[in-house]
Amino acid sequence: MNESIEEPEAPAPGSRRPGGRTARTRAAVRDAVLTGLSEHGYPALTVEYVAEHSGVHKTTLYRRWGGVEGMVADALDLAGEDRWSPPDTGSLGGDLRALAREVVDGFAEPADAAAPTAFVGAAFQSPRAAEALRSFYAERFRRCEEVVKRAVARGEAPAGADAGAVVRAVSAPLFLRLFVTREPLDHRLADQAADAAAAALAAGVFDRSPADAAPTTKDRPAADTAGAAGG
Amino acid sequence: MNESIEEPEAPAPGSRRPGGRTARTRAAVRDAVLTGLSEHGYPALTVEYVAEHSGVHKTTLYRRWGGVEGMVADALDLAGEDRWSPPDTGSLGGDLRALAREVVDGFAEPADAAAPTAFVGAAFQSPRAAEALRSFYAERFRRCEEVVKRAVARGEAPAGADAGAVVRAVSAPLFLRLFVTREPLDHRLADQAADAAAAALAAGVFDRSPADAAPTTKDRPAADTAGAAGG
Repeated sequence: MNESIEEPEAPAPGSRRPGGRTARTRAAVRDAVLTGLSEHGYPALTVEYVAEHSGVHKTTLYRRWGGVEGMVADALDLAGEDRWSPPDTGSLGGDLRALAREVVDGFAEPADAAAPTAFVGAAFQSPRAAEALRSFYAERFRRCEEVVKRAVARGEAPAGADAGAVVRAVSAPLFLRLFVTREPLDHRLADQAADAAAAALAAGVFDRSPADAAPTTKDRPAADTAGAAGG
Repeated sequence: MNESIEEPEAPAPGSRRPGGRTARTRAAVRDAVLTGLSEHGYPALTVEYVAEHSGVHKTTLYRRWGGVEGMVADALDLAGEDRWSPPDTGSLGGDLRALAREVVDGFAEPADAAAPTAFVGAAFQSPRAAEALRSFYAERFRRCEEVVKRAVARGEAPAGADAGAVVRAVSAPLFLRLFVTREPLDHRLADQAADAAAAALAAGVFDRSPADAAPTTKDRPAADTAGAAGG
C-alpha cells in the first residue's frame, strides 16, 4: 500500500511535527471532528462530514485514521497534548477551588461545553473513544496531583495522601451534575466540591494505608517496587 | 385518531395499572428497550427492534410512545417506579458506605451494568432521555436524603446540612470512574467516597448557609417560599 500521494512521509497519527503539513492536516481533521461532535453528536459523525469540513480527502482519512472512531480518538489525543497545568494560588484550599471553578467555567457556555461533552458521550458508543478518554483524564488528573504534592511540601497535607483520589474528588460532584444528573452548576457548588475534598483530606480519608501514611519525607523510596527494579 | 384496536382503553404511558394489559405491554416494551440498549446502545435502537423483541406492533409503538426517544424515556420512568429505599444500618457512616457499595456492586457485573450505563449514554443523544434521566436521579437522590435526615435526628449531623449534596458526594467519585474516566471500582473506593462525604459533612462543608444552619427543629417552615405560597 505505497500510495501516499497527498502525504509522502505520512507518519502515524500520534507523531508530532508542529507546523508541518501533517500537523496541519491533523489539526484540520480535529477541528472538523469537534465541530461535528458538537453540532450533531457521535452517532451522526461520518467520514463524509469530516472530509467536507476539513478539506481532507476521504481516502486519506480512511488510510490514516481508519474511520470515525480513529479520528475521534486522535482528536482527544491531540487535546491531551496541550500545556495545561493546574492553578498555583499558594494554598491547597485556593488551588482546589480554582481547579473546581475551572471545570464549572469550562462548561458554562454551551459552545465551550459541546466538544468535551460530546467526547464523554462518544465513549459510550466507541471503545476507541472510551480508551482515548480514559487516557486523556488519566493524564489530566496526573497533572492535577501537583496541587496536592505542593500542599504536602508546604506541610498542608499528609505525605501519605492519595493525590489522585483527592483531585478526582474535587471534579466528581461537578462531572456528576454535568454528565449524569444534568443539574446546573455554579461557583458555590465548585467551592463546595473543593472544600469537601480538602476536609476529607485533612481528616485522613485519602491516606493510602496505615503503613504508607507514616513517613514524612517526600523522597521516600517506593519500598514495594525498589526490589523488583533491581536498584 | 380513534384506531385503538389492540388497546381500547390505551392510557398515557405514565399512568399505572399494575397487572393490566397496558402494564404488560409497557413492561414488554421496557424489556425490549433494555435489551436493545444493553446489547447495541442507543444509536442502534430502532422501533423495528423493539417491535420484534416485545411482540408489540410498530403502529402501537409509534402511537403510544412516538418513537425510540419516548420508549427510552418511559423505560427510565418505569425504572423509577420501584420501591427501592436506602439502607438503614443504624449509623451515618454505615449507611453512606452501604449506599456507595450498592453502586459499586450494581455495576460489578457487565450484564447488570449494561442497561443503566446505556441510559446515561442515551442522554447524550436524546433530550427526552436526558430529561428522564434527570428525573430518575432527582428522585433516587431524594430517597437517599433519608439517610442524612436520620443522622440529623440522631444528632450525628448538623440540622442545616444540605442532604442532597451529601448523598451526591457519595456517588460522585464512583460515577466519575464509571462514566467519565472509565477506571475500575472496588469496595475500598466505595468506602473512601462515603467516608470523604461524612468527613466533609462533619467539617460543616455541606451546611446550607450560616442563616439556614442555625435552627435545630426539623419542622422549620421554608421561610423563603411560605409567603409566595400564600399560607
